[in-house]
Amino acid sequence: MAGASASNKLLSLGTKIVAVGRNYAAHAKELGNAVPKEPVLFLKPTSSYLQNGGAIEVPHPLESLDHEVELAVIVGRNARDVPQGTAMDYVGGYALALDMTAREIQSSAKAAGLPWTVAKGQDTFTPIGSVIPTSMVKDPHDLELWLKVDGETRQKGSTKDMMFKIPFLISHISSIMTLFEGDVILTGTPPGVGPVKAGQKITAGITGLVEVQFDVQKRQRPNSS
Amino acid sequence: MAGASASNKLLSLGTKIVAVGRNYAAHAKELGNAVPKEPVLFLKPTSSYLQNGGAIEVPHPLESLDHEVELAVIVGRNARDVPQGTAMDYVGGYALALDMTAREIQSSAKAAGLPWTVAKGQDTFTPIGSVIPTSMVKDPHDLELWLKVDGETRQKGSTKDMMFKIPFLISHISSIMTLFEGDVILTGTPPGVGPVKAGQKITAGITGLVEVQFDVQKRQRPNSS
Ligand SMILES: [Mg+2]
Ligand SMILES: [Mg+2]
Ligand SMILES: [Mg+2]
Repeated sequence: MAGASASNKLLSLGTKIVAVGRNYAAHAKELGNAVPKEPVLFLKPTSSYLQNGGAIEVPHPLESLDHEVELAVIVGRNARDVPQGTAMDYVGGYALALDMTAREIQSSAKAAGLPWTVAKGQDTFTPIGSVIPTSMVKDPHDLELWLKVDGETRQKGSTKDMMFKIPFLISHISSIMTLFEGDVILTGTPPGVGPVKAGQKITAGITGLVEVQFDVQKRQRPNSS
Repeated sequence: MAGASASNKLLSLGTKIVAVGRNYAAHAKELGNAVPKEPVLFLKPTSSYLQNGGAIEVPHPLESLDHEVELAVIVGRNARDVPQGTAMDYVGGYALALDMTAREIQSSAKAAGLPWTVAKGQDTFTPIGSVIPTSMVKDPHDLELWLKVDGETRQKGSTKDMMFKIPFLISHISSIMTLFEGDVILTGTPPGVGPVKAGQKITAGITGLVEVQFDVQKRQRPNSS
């Protein structure tokens, strides 16, 4: 696809992933969480990216990870204190991403008032497809996201159900921290999250735009320690 | 100083700051926290860096931020699953850093089981000095860290009181996520943390090695929104 490699270069410039939790009411509800009054934000490191076709690794001693399919918004230029009215000018592209989550670790962390970093930030925990140029996306708030495990549909939802829309997210996040060119905002997941285990295969996509696939395997650790 | 600008280039290559919480027993105690069995880890974005001499910004409607003086370890080359025995080979330098914290926001987040990102990740929340080459640091576990507010000593402690030492931290963190060249590990703060307000001045240092200073001011926001 023309422009795809230039677009993927954009992703490689980034230094952070700002993820939004509980941005679809139906997903907040399925985990028993309150619908938030302002976006729940957390960071994932860019070391957690995994390119399309790669293998998601389940670290020892976990048996599974939860899949969360999300629309990724890729920042096109540095953004600080951006008003909602011009926020879309800062979008450099979109992508389909998964916010892989070690749910047991996250649950313990939440109960103890501790950060989600280990639950959300491990290598391969952010599988992501190629960058989709903005010119190919008529309305980012009218996209169908879907995810299948071994061919069986687990998640299907529309970005129109996001509670906090993209201009608000860019404005809000940029009032807290500068967004740099290539940084990514993960906009939250529709309902249907659930576990995947080693040996299973995830396919996911944005209907009519992109499809990605990832194997799931146990993480191999070196013997030395 | 010869080599200083080459060293600061190292810092500019980084994509993440991995911060360790509660790594000095006396500080864990002063906040009423349990001493952890494994390191408490959280991420700060590189957009939160502030160079020596800059102004720390207290965002509206907060009246103060807490100072935490910390030894920063700068990663010299990509590290994944590094054993403790060779971990120090991955250190590219050190720096004196502050882990500025909006304590009220962090307390609410902890109570609600939410991430610390907004409490820890805002612009100017990671003031950091020049990179100190490893050749200038005989023993990173025998450094005196100090911090004064308006000339009055608030924190003074030795890195020998870190519960989790640097080789363990590098090995442990690199078993969770790849550390890239230029990434930073903040190794935790000795006791004495407390609030600073607009108009005050922080000086801090590593005795015999480096001294930094930062003004504190209220953050100015643009009118548009
Ligand atoms: Mg980061
Ligand atoms: Mg998510
Ligand atoms: Mg700290």
